[in-house]
Amino acid sequence: MSEPNQEIEFETHPDHYRHWRLEIEGATARLVWDVREDAPLRPGYVLKLNTYDLGVDIELADAVQRLRFEHPEVRAVAITSGKEKVFSAGANIHMLGSSSHSFKVNFCKFTNETRLAIEDACRNSGQRYLAACKGVTAGGGYELALACDEILLVDDGNSAVSLPEVPLLGVLPGTGGLTRIVDKRLVRRDLADVFCTLAEGVRGDRARRWRLVDHVAPRSRFQDLVDERLQALSQDLPRREGPGVNLLPLKAEIGSDRYAYRCLTVDLDRRERVATITLKGPEGPPPANAAALRAQGSDAYLFRIFRELDDAICRLRFNEEEIGLLLLKSAGDPEQVVAHDEALLSLAGEDWFAREILLSMARTLRRLDTTARSIFALVEPDSCFAGSLLEAALAADRTYALDDPERPLRMILSSVNLGACPMGHDLARLQVRLLHDVAAWDRLSGQVKAGEHPAFDAAGAVETGLVTIAADDIDYEDEVRVAIEERASLSPDALTGMEASLRFPGPENMETKVFGRLSAWQNWIFQRPNAVGEKGALKLYGRPERPSFDWRRT
Amino acid sequence: MSEPNQEIEFETHPDHYRHWRLEIEGATARLVWDVREDAPLRPGYVLKLNTYDLGVDIELADAVQRLRFEHPEVRAVAITSGKEKVFSAGANIHMLGSSSHSFKVNFCKFTNETRLAIEDACRNSGQRYLAACKGVTAGGGYELALACDEILLVDDGNSAVSLPEVPLLGVLPGTGGLTRIVDKRLVRRDLADVFCTLAEGVRGDRARRWRLVDHVAPRSRFQDLVDERLQALSQDLPRREGPGVNLLPLKAEIGSDRYAYRCLTVDLDRRERVATITLKGPEGPPPANAAALRAQGSDAYLFRIFRELDDAICRLRFNEEEIGLLLLKSAGDPEQVVAHDEALLSLAGEDWFAREILLSMARTLRRLDTTARSIFALVEPDSCFAGSLLEAALAADRTYALDDPERPLRMILSSVNLGACPMGHDLARLQVRLLHDVAAWDRLSGQVKAGEHPAFDAAGAVETGLVTIAADDIDYEDEVRVAIEERASLSPDALTGMEASLRFPGPENMETKVFGRLSAWQNWIFQRPNAVGEKGALKLYGRPERPSFDWRRT
Repeated sequence: MSEPNQEIEFETHPDHYRHWRLEIEGATARLVWDVREDAPLRPGYVLKLNTYDLGVDIELADAVQRLRFEHPEVRAVAITSGKEKVFSAGANIHMLGSSSHSFKVNFCKFTNETRLAIEDACRNSGQRYLAACKGVTAGGGYELALACDEILLVDDGNSAVSLPEVPLLGVLPGTGGLTRIVDKRLVRRDLADVFCTLAEGVRGDRARRWRLVDHVAPRSRFQDLVDERLQALSQDLPRREGPGVNLLPLKAEIGSDRYAYRCLTVDLDRRERVATITLKGPEGPPPANAAALRAQGSDAYLFRIFRELDDAICRLRFNEEEIGLLLLKSAGDPEQVVAHDEALLSLAGEDWFAREILLSMARTLRRLDTTARSIFALVEPDSCFAGSLLEAALAADRTYALDDPERPLRMILSSVNLGACPMGHDLARLQVRLLHDVAAWDRLSGQVKAGEHPAFDAAGAVETGLVTIAADDIDYEDEVRVAIEERASLSPDALTGMEASLRFPGPENMETKVFGRLSAWQNWIFQRPNAVGEKGALKLYGRPERPSFDWRRT
Repeated sequence: MSEPNQEIEFETHPDHYRHWRLEIEGATARLVWDVREDAPLRPGYVLKLNTYDLGVDIELADAVQRLRFEHPEVRAVAITSGKEKVFSAGANIHMLGSSSHSFKVNFCKFTNETRLAIEDACRNSGQRYLAACKGVTAGGGYELALACDEILLVDDGNSAVSLPEVPLLGVLPGTGGLTRIVDKRLVRRDLADVFCTLAEGVRGDRARRWRLVDHVAPRSRFQDLVDERLQALSQDLPRREGPGVNLLPLKAEIGSDRYAYRCLTVDLDRRERVATITLKGPEGPPPANAAALRAQGSDAYLFRIFRELDDAICRLRFNEEEIGLLLLKSAGDPEQVVAHDEALLSLAGEDWFAREILLSMARTLRRLDTTARSIFALVEPDSCFAGSLLEAALAADRTYALDDPERPLRMILSSVNLGACPMGHDLARLQVRLLHDVAAWDRLSGQVKAGEHPAFDAAGAVETGLVTIAADDIDYEDEVRVAIEERASLSPDALTGMEASLRFPGPENMETKVFGRLSAWQNWIFQRPNAVGEKGALKLYGRPERPSFDWRRT
């Protein structure tokens, strides 16, 4: 169970990619994966056959993000392999076999989020993806293809798509695979059952008939097919006028117990297992128009603070496994947050950059929703939990407010709270708080749509459901301290399961099924001796011994 | 990890209840739980404080079923406690702590199904349930209350509802609790978070304001409140004319490797880990009218075969843990099955007994859907997979057909296939097969609604998607044998997770969230050292030592 000893960094840049090449050709792009065998994220395994580890996926996530912002002219992206005989053999098994349970689980979560980011681009950013599969397209390799709009497969009697996890490894195709084949691609469930137990996968026209791929072509015609489909996919998409906006490095100061970003700080208390995230309100008014927003680029306040939050969440997930509780605080002028929100939203209708900022904020908030740490928000007199920053508080498991009549706090709604940054199941976080009181949701949305910004003091916030518990200045500190200590005493596993259940009331969709159903089963299996015991299938993969199973079904 | 050595029996009768009393008073009934401490299902624990084990729940399931059939005059049922100071302290922890993982998981599944049966009665059978909670109403005790239409709580400064699993045991309220509080009762999710970490629970009016209960009353007024609410709940419900229909014992012959019921047999091959379930078609025509159906009572063909199937599934789940594959076969006249289906459906509009039979069949089929064993259906020339029996085949993970031109097989649709026995997420099984081809679903439903009974031979069944793989008589046996052997070689855990994902494409609802999301997380937690390790919270419950946790969050 060797763990990475050094901090994992989530920022990268195409100039530093080791595993991917991003090739822009006018309105289309090629994202070529050509994994360097000798460049794993940590020593101990070799990345053969375009297998991937977290390092490979961090680069992919970066490329997808940069395509949206830095290359607005690109309307269709082909994911192709730089290796002759393999698209990808999936997640690296030796990496998985030598990783701790919590690393495995967080690795799967991150890769799922990357694939959802691709689907978000296809759906909302006018950038369509196709997977050009040649040779072995197995496991996580095929799961990446499943995240694309279209899957093309060489028909050469050899190239096959497969999900061999169940027969070969005794685990699930857990990067969305099981959910996407039946829920997204609508593969008939009995055919999916056959497919998921066929280690060698399915080839050629049969793969097309089973809906596992969209188009097949012989090797000689394949390049033409890819070009044709890229052209076809890029048709009828809205034009996004250039130039792009460069994503500049965040340049955070990562200290031993503090991450200092420009717009937020994270203070780590490892003894208490608590990280305090303090969001700073904007320092000035919002940009007056699209040109001004463009001039600010990746330093625009809302874009920057949510990029920083995204980076901080990823660091906490992987580098601080024992931090069990995130305390969300904020400091600044809530009216200014609302002003930035409304400026961004008013531009988002016309300006792709503003729209992309909003989509990016939404992805970060969804990453927060699925982060397996308890989250408490603390609302105090100098807080600025309004609009988009209030979304973070609404993602919390509970919220405490200091009710000091001398210094009344203010929580304010903006248009962002009406669903501009929806949860994975497409509901607004405020709507989820108000599932029991649809009339209140309708009333508040009506006010915001009419240009009002309902504001709440502590009592009003409790009454409306934005705050769980308010206490006066005599009790507040004790109340919060006791709550933190209690939380820190509970079983981390039970909290993970509880939070995964309580955070998502309401309908489910493919995204929430991936995190709530597929991942939960995978986590269970990742813990079972049949997979990870000394004679488990995952443990013995690649060795001559056969796995030995406990046959009791559950 | 002591296991029950003797076979668990699922048939019982009020005359033999040890833990419940069923008291009928005109249009209302009281279901009084008064658990006998000294009568656990297997030795080794004491059922204090109305804690329950599988034996208690088998009686509850029986009572709920008999209320529907034997007491049609009953329109409202109060679940009350026979003990003064406790409604129920939930599932018995010592039983859980001393059970194997697979027993725990199957115990939770069965109890979830019993609670869903109560909700099905409330929704579809005109029998409303209320829980009259006095004293401790904790964990599974409160989860049973959550399954009722209404929850009443004594307001005496002492009586409380609680879900103390997370703080006390390091596991989840896994009998639907987490899902029902936010999805059914619409408790605000941050309040639910507080509630689920409060070992002592919530009392009185606060419980009402948090939506945890519907009505509270002081002890002196409580009995009146129960009576009032029983009266109110039973208003405006359709009358179901008596007399009731007694559920006669199935009188199966349970041998060492064969269960022989009247309408089906189960043959156990423990070496291959396969159980072959052979459904026999009806021996005569269907009853001509409601009176004839009533005369047949619990021996009416469709009622009987599905009751037998239900019993067989429960036996296999608990008494045959290593059986990994159910092979579904059938033998008889498919036209006769269709005739029985149509007769039942045509009566169901008017006759409550016919309707109850259909609802009961639907529950059994849903029990099959959530059974964690692989299911293959085998369709052969003498098969009668038509209508309701076809539903069982459509629940299978895959279906093999013998395509013998000399003896062509016949699969026939009846009105039952249009959703009269829906899956947990309310879709018809045929509809799930045809998610990719809505036009085909529309066309077939249209034909059936027009009184036709589309029939398919092997080729047609493959074409339509009723059959996965058809083979001629030269290949069929080999094909099936190899498929069975392959299936039997795979990791049982991976299969459980895979089947739970592939069987339920499409939307989710509370029921599928309980089995797919909540249960999956609970199963994970039930496997984790933080719960079941030597220093785990579940293991140490009731002992002086404090649990010791691995703090890594996942």
